[in-house]
Amino acid sequence: MRIPNAFYAQSGGVTAVINVSACAVLETARLFPERIGKVLAGRNGIIGALQEDLIDTSLESAAAIRALRHTPGGAFGSCRYKLKGLDQHRAQYERLIEVFRAHDIGYFFYNGGNDSMDTAWKVSQIGEQLGYPVVCVGIPKTVDNDLPVTDNCPGFGSVAKYVATSMREAGLDVASMARTSTKIFVLEVMGRHAGWITAACGLAAEQEGDAPHILLFPEVPFDEPRFLARVQDCVDRFGYCCIGVSEGLLDAGGALMAESGGKDAFGHSQLGGVGQIVAQLIKDKLGHKYHWALADYLQRSARHIASATDVEQAYAVGKAAVELAVQGRNAVMPTIVRASENPYRWEIGVAELKDVANVEKKMPREFISADGFGITEACRRYLTPLISGEDFPPFRNGLPDYGRLRNASVTRKLSGGFTI
Amino acid sequence: MRIPNAFYAQSGGVTAVINVSACAVLETARLFPERIGKVLAGRNGIIGALQEDLIDTSLESAAAIRALRHTPGGAFGSCRYKLKGLDQHRAQYERLIEVFRAHDIGYFFYNGGNDSMDTAWKVSQIGEQLGYPVVCVGIPKTVDNDLPVTDNCPGFGSVAKYVATSMREAGLDVASMARTSTKIFVLEVMGRHAGWITAACGLAAEQEGDAPHILLFPEVPFDEPRFLARVQDCVDRFGYCCIGVSEGLLDAGGALMAESGGKDAFGHSQLGGVGQIVAQLIKDKLGHKYHWALADYLQRSARHIASATDVEQAYAVGKAAVELAVQGRNAVMPTIVRASENPYRWEIGVAELKDVANVEKKMPREFISADGFGITEACRRYLTPLISGEDFPPFRNGLPDYGRLRNASVTRKLSGGFTI
Repeated sequence: MRIPNAFYAQSGGVTAVINVSACAVLETARLFPERIGKVLAGRNGIIGALQEDLIDTSLESAAAIRALRHTPGGAFGSCRYKLKGLDQHRAQYERLIEVFRAHDIGYFFYNGGNDSMDTAWKVSQIGEQLGYPVVCVGIPKTVDNDLPVTDNCPGFGSVAKYVATSMREAGLDVASMARTSTKIFVLEVMGRHAGWITAACGLAAEQEGDAPHILLFPEVPFDEPRFLARVQDCVDRFGYCCIGVSEGLLDAGGALMAESGGKDAFGHSQLGGVGQIVAQLIKDKLGHKYHWALADYLQRSARHIASATDVEQAYAVGKAAVELAVQGRNAVMPTIVRASENPYRWEIGVAELKDVANVEKKMPREFISADGFGITEACRRYLTPLISGEDFPPFRNGLPDYGRLRNASVTRKLSGGFTI
Repeated sequence: MRIPNAFYAQSGGVTAVINVSACAVLETARLFPERIGKVLAGRNGIIGALQEDLIDTSLESAAAIRALRHTPGGAFGSCRYKLKGLDQHRAQYERLIEVFRAHDIGYFFYNGGNDSMDTAWKVSQIGEQLGYPVVCVGIPKTVDNDLPVTDNCPGFGSVAKYVATSMREAGLDVASMARTSTKIFVLEVMGRHAGWITAACGLAAEQEGDAPHILLFPEVPFDEPRFLARVQDCVDRFGYCCIGVSEGLLDAGGALMAESGGKDAFGHSQLGGVGQIVAQLIKDKLGHKYHWALADYLQRSARHIASATDVEQAYAVGKAAVELAVQGRNAVMPTIVRASENPYRWEIGVAELKDVANVEKKMPREFISADGFGITEACRRYLTPLISGEDFPPFRNGLPDYGRLRNASVTRKLSGGFTI
């Protein structure tokens, strides 16, 4: 009997725990030798499939695969590449089938966020529409926490833990400097369309006066006078003011603040750095000395401070994806279901890819405080379990000892190439 | 017999482990009840002494003091305030003596960097010059690692561990994104005059091709054509290029790059952000997409990833300071002496404050590779033990559980104030 191989790829921005899901897929697939042959990984996401650039994971040791569980980044390479519709770019799909057929691919696992679930959904339709049977399962991943249906997304909990930890630590620093030096600290975090990561900064505060004092969400257009009044109020009451701001903050007119700064002396557009824009505004209008930090990739790759809950869930969705696939469940994605909040319990559910693809889950308004500058208790109750527990990587010579794969290429079987 | 009290204060930029030294001072002082009365802490450094704004640490529980060992920031507040010379501002010194006399201060512990050791040195002279006997001991602290005599400075090892960890993690992220998205990543770190922290980024790389690929030190003026050629070479060979840059990078003319960017559209000076300047240069000249991160206070407050070696040394210098004081050793500072490199062993030495004050230790040229873009093996041998070992804080609800002091004020005994 023919035992089909599986294709696994990572897509979109990577996270501290996307490799945990990869680990789960590879380890779980090895438990079904009668159903799944080799797992072939796409080098750089779907591009690896289109260009027949495949990695033979069967050549990796069990220890190397296990090490994925504590290694950030995307072990096989990721991509930002979205498949067009079947009617718009039929050649892409025909190429996929050509590669799948050549390598006996019967399962397709795609590990990513909104755009990637759209790709997965399109691939799930090629059996019906183009006659090549493949069982396609999406595996959720996104630091933005904006996939629908699932209670939360693997990758988010670890970023949340990182930004809350960083805000708490920087807040203690600023508090001690405020008397004669820095009174304002701004931390810019990711989340262009949804304020989940910004909200997570708010977990740093336990008592009145703790950092952060103000959060600026992409969901709440920037109100300069109200903001400046609040900053001054914090300085008056606490001696300092710490602010968490989303890279996607909008001005009163609905434009991205980060793009509203015009050109600098070189004629460049003012780039990103909404954190600096906000901090400089305070300096100009209120005269307070500031520092600002841009966490950027540090926040989403910080495996050293990953949430144990996040690691467990990232593993669980990878494992569930393989289990669904061997049951022949096409066009689905495992989800995380919040079974109970106090005590927190979760379990794995299943969503249809068509319900997930391209749908963005925003923060509920009731998670943002009435004044728009903070989070509510309901938000805390939602977020706190997601950052719970530590899962430190092993260390060697003072640094996290992250894994390395061989990533040996599968010999190409097709003569033609494919230009993306 | 009169048992004099001690004064302890924190000065300059705080670190992840300055409170470890504070913990050591308080715990060790309690071991000498026959020699040291209470330890009174200055609120916001020397300003607390000048303004008679003192904290009674005897009211803190042993557990609260112990928690300082895992708490970043400056628990009593710090300051950026340098005493002028005795001949220039005699009133300051007379005020100090007035406060010391009112509160029976016989020991003066000042925990800081270069400027602070200058202050400590000046205070150590008031016995001889103004007739008020005080035993004055400096306690080294600075993330910049630029104090002379001592092999290294408490505070540096933890920043070094943080930036190397962050660079390793972000490097894995960029490597996985480089095929279709970000090819360049720039991490801007502290160290305005000395490249120690920049050098520490280099510890992230273990093999050729690992991040970081280029380091830009304040000691090596920026050479744009050579730099751009190296960036392109890395992209060609490895697919991506990660860069660690010091905030104090100088241009070919010796001016701070961060200040050479002119004004933006609002007429502001181009602020800090040399990391962005370098990244944008690559984008403009080579066309590669970039991300950049500004670690700022995150790097120096990251107690969650502190070096165990650093924590031990920060404790040891605090303990030694008290032991020196009860021996009547005035105008000294405990140092860290590297007794052996392999295996690494260290012990506590003693420096004269006059040899430490205002002297800045730069990176030896032999620690920077011949091409100016990396670190040498000698540098690695120096740095590696300083980041060794982990000393994670306790966690609660998913976040580091940092301590809080009561910081109760000592009742003022003087009628007059003092304006700083």
